[in-house]
Amino acid sequence: MTEVEMPGSNPVMMDTTAVKDGENYVINGQKWYSTAADGAAFSIVMAVTNPDAEPYLRASMIIVPTNTPGFNLVRNIPVMGHSGDDYASHGEILFQSCRVPQKNLLGPEGLGFVIAQERLGPGRIHHCMRWLGICKRAFDLMCSRASKRIIAPDGRALATKQIIQSWVAECAAEIQAARLMTLHAAWKIEKLGTKAARYDISFIKFYVAGVLQKVIDKALQVHGGMGMTDDTIIAYFYRHERAARIYDGADEVHKMAVAKRILRDYEGRTVR
Amino acid sequence: MTEVEMPGSNPVMMDTTAVKDGENYVINGQKWYSTAADGAAFSIVMAVTNPDAEPYLRASMIIVPTNTPGFNLVRNIPVMGHSGDDYASHGEILFQSCRVPQKNLLGPEGLGFVIAQERLGPGRIHHCMRWLGICKRAFDLMCSRASKRIIAPDGRALATKQIIQSWVAECAAEIQAARLMTLHAAWKIEKLGTKAARYDISFIKFYVAGVLQKVIDKALQVHGGMGMTDDTIIAYFYRHERAARIYDGADEVHKMAVAKRILRDYEGRTVR
Amino acid sequence: MTEVEMPGSNPVMMDTTAVKDGENYVINGQKWYSTAADGAAFSIVMAVTNPDAEPYLRASMIIVPTNTPGFNLVRNIPVMGHSGDDYASHGEILFQSCRVPQKNLLGPEGLGFVIAQERLGPGRIHHCMRWLGICKRAFDLMCSRASKRIIAPDGRALATKQIIQSWVAECAAEIQAARLMTLHAAWKIEKLGTKAARYDISFIKFYVAGVLQKVIDKALQVHGGMGMTDDTIIAYFYRHERAARIYDGADEVHKMAVAKRILRDYEGRTVR
Amino acid sequence: MTEVEMPGSNPVMMDTTAVKDGENYVINGQKWYSTAADGAAFSIVMAVTNPDAEPYLRASMIIVPTNTPGFNLVRNIPVMGHSGDDYASHGEILFQSCRVPQKNLLGPEGLGFVIAQERLGPGRIHHCMRWLGICKRAFDLMCSRASKRIIAPDGRALATKQIIQSWVAECAAEIQAARLMTLHAAWKIEKLGTKAARYDISFIKFYVAGVLQKVIDKALQVHGGMGMTDDTIIAYFYRHERAARIYDGADEVHKMAVAKRILRDYEGRTVR
Repeated sequence: MTEVEMPGSNPVMMDTTAVKDGENYVINGQKWYSTAADGAAFSIVMAVTNPDAEPYLRASMIIVPTNTPGFNLVRNIPVMGHSGDDYASHGEILFQSCRVPQKNLLGPEGLGFVIAQERLGPGRIHHCMRWLGICKRAFDLMCSRASKRIIAPDGRALATKQIIQSWVAECAAEIQAARLMTLHAAWKIEKLGTKAARYDISFIKFYVAGVLQKVIDKALQVHGGMGMTDDTIIAYFYRHERAARIYDGADEVHKMAVAKRILRDYEGRTVR
Repeated sequence: MTEVEMPGSNPVMMDTTAVKDGENYVINGQKWYSTAADGAAFSIVMAVTNPDAEPYLRASMIIVPTNTPGFNLVRNIPVMGHSGDDYASHGEILFQSCRVPQKNLLGPEGLGFVIAQERLGPGRIHHCMRWLGICKRAFDLMCSRASKRIIAPDGRALATKQIIQSWVAECAAEIQAARLMTLHAAWKIEKLGTKAARYDISFIKFYVAGVLQKVIDKALQVHGGMGMTDDTIIAYFYRHERAARIYDGADEVHKMAVAKRILRDYEGRTVR
Repeated sequence: MTEVEMPGSNPVMMDTTAVKDGENYVINGQKWYSTAADGAAFSIVMAVTNPDAEPYLRASMIIVPTNTPGFNLVRNIPVMGHSGDDYASHGEILFQSCRVPQKNLLGPEGLGFVIAQERLGPGRIHHCMRWLGICKRAFDLMCSRASKRIIAPDGRALATKQIIQSWVAECAAEIQAARLMTLHAAWKIEKLGTKAARYDISFIKFYVAGVLQKVIDKALQVHGGMGMTDDTIIAYFYRHERAARIYDGADEVHKMAVAKRILRDYEGRTVR
Repeated sequence: MTEVEMPGSNPVMMDTTAVKDGENYVINGQKWYSTAADGAAFSIVMAVTNPDAEPYLRASMIIVPTNTPGFNLVRNIPVMGHSGDDYASHGEILFQSCRVPQKNLLGPEGLGFVIAQERLGPGRIHHCMRWLGICKRAFDLMCSRASKRIIAPDGRALATKQIIQSWVAECAAEIQAARLMTLHAAWKIEKLGTKAARYDISFIKFYVAGVLQKVIDKALQVHGGMGMTDDTIIAYFYRHERAARIYDGADEVHKMAVAKRILRDYEGRTVR
């Protein structure tokens, strides 16, 4: 269980603190969306240890066994209708003077954000790859349903309808675009490193998430009432993949980041 | 519990039959999305009684007590993660030589579709009114969250962000459009009757459903991770109101219907 | 010819000045988009007369005969391929120590923006009404073309295609929405005055402009190659009505303005 | 000058005919969008020579010198406000018993469509490459303008606005997607031939055209009133690149074609 702050959080807004007291850290604060907290042996807590440092050097990662006094799992947060349990859960944790030895510090003090950032680049492209798989599955289900669903006594299927065809074509093209951009970003990470591929990763983070949402939406619509049921996996995708536009940096956060970087290059330049 | 066919169904595709046998009807077939079947005392079944009549005069509505032998509630269909029960459920029903007296017929034989159609016009505008209420609530939650969520140490809220502002403005304008169109359709139903307002009802059926989906989506996005949880009602709206674009005639069915009617007026006419 | 600044301009950014000298104003600065400057007898110039006043009280309107020395019509600005002339032109004007009597002042000094604002509300709804007429004409041309254009030897017209039908239905619904919102804003102006209807006017300014662009785009597409030619009026609409999203306040400016006003009401309020 | 029919034309709808008479063909019919007819020495005319053959084997290509009696250039068709001349024109041609020797036939009789199709694949990817160049230029102009345009007395530029930033990010991502898809199609043409890349070409034909239109639209909006003028090239792009969604097969035609091909693979297949 890792308790980094909510994606997109401003580090200066983090309010969980770890204050040194003798050989310990005393942790106070509240966390949520602590994935798999329920049943975990320990958590990795991100907390402000150096409040006077510059923003991205204020927080540290600290290992906290879940049976430490002051570590309180308040609840498994209900997400899209289910609280889940064990690995498939997101906990809300309250730290109340929770005391752990300073040797539980992960890496150097103040470098919590640096460590998290290391993981987020590869983490994001991993999400995109997973989304591509979901796109493909939803697309397959859409095409299959359209081909099978007979809508007229002469045996004509839904697939003969022009609107369905236009969805199929658009989804196919956009999945192709998403796949090529993800491959390109992966290639760039491999050749030039995560840092050089930073904006390629931002591109796919919001672009692929957008394609994912469109494909799932159309697949659901093609299934009609059945699309709302759990008789196919589409309704599950619809509920849970909505988070794709939020976690690991909301769409809007990534758009701002890349745009600012791109626009910087045009300052003082003349373009015709 | 009323068991009309799935919205948008072609009547010639209906395959539940009610065949006369002595003083009874013998009903065979399968139905799903029979709302509130679980716990109901009786159902109203739409079945083909006149297979050789013209399509919209083939089916009748028949009252079938749920304790009649051959009436089998197979399951409550799981919808968006929950099967529900009692009133809040959608049953799959299997009719196996289910025998009821012919006097259980509702209205004249063969007029099942005519009766259903009577109800669907007012039923649709009722949905639109309900959606407007949901739009308003989701909009309120979005604006409230944007105003309260502090994103910077200087106290600036999410509401100061231009992208959030553009969503607020677009949603407000589109809710206003949806409201005025619904009021106009209601006024036309009152003044000229449901039939005269048929295309106004189709307009709002797909237009308001589209606005609903957009407003809920933006409200969820403004809430970030919290929008995925059940700590607000938005995630519930997101799951269940997706059906708005499907039931009582999918968006696409209504679009085709109004377009054909509109285009008919241009045949043979010269426009400059 | 009225030379207000470009729509959306920040008054503190205005750089044309009118400085008192004896009984005259001496005007210096550059203006563009001065509609109908070519051939005009006089212009109404907005210039900074009170640079130290608060922003919206800095500028005044002054009548300047076009034959005044120092009034230079540099060119008719070419717009979408044509410079136009006379009434149908937009001039670039250079004021070089252009001297006019102070009695040419229109209204009180410093109230130029106040006067302009008075006119902009009604001016904007007038644009929306005009756009509705253009929507209707483009829609008629689209439907007529779709009905007449035979695409198969069996006599089937373009109008039988589902994609065309979905455009027709969406455009019809959105034109209806645009019309009702405009009527509502007009009613509110009449009953409660321009100020009370300020945000209703902003709504229609961007909403109707958006519908206009969509309807023209679809009408053009339905016409295929012919839509690019000047054999119908659609290509003219396509070129010139693009400005609708810019003049009298760009879409984005209106969206920000209404959103800020709406969001203000949610500050400190609890919404559930 | 090549006079193939309007893109998307159904060959069975072609009505220009070339009938054998002694050693000649006698050509009758009307053509439009005959690019560069004005000033050309000869034209290549597509005409029905084998009306009873199967649809795609009915037409032939024939060389017709423009000074042949019966070859009448009716006009240069005005496109987006200008008729153009010479190379930069599109002629409307009336063939009135226009007589040319049969040896002017290009390739075998009846193979006109086959020859045209050969050219259209590479022709389409060429358009996409050109559009990518236009995207890049419009994007550069947008970013440059946003960086230079000061909107507040404190020196803040338009580029600091979040809405502009979101456009920049979205356009950049979509241009990247368009570029990678075009490269991929080119690679496939080279490795496997035009026929194997047929649907890749359809994908980029509509996808890149869509990105092009979006980028030009946003670039124009960022320029405000100046975007409507011919002081930048954007207004020219806006007018003329609108045709991208029409020529060489309208978006809708390509979408139907690829969708039908994709959906065929799902017939009779079970997907879970």
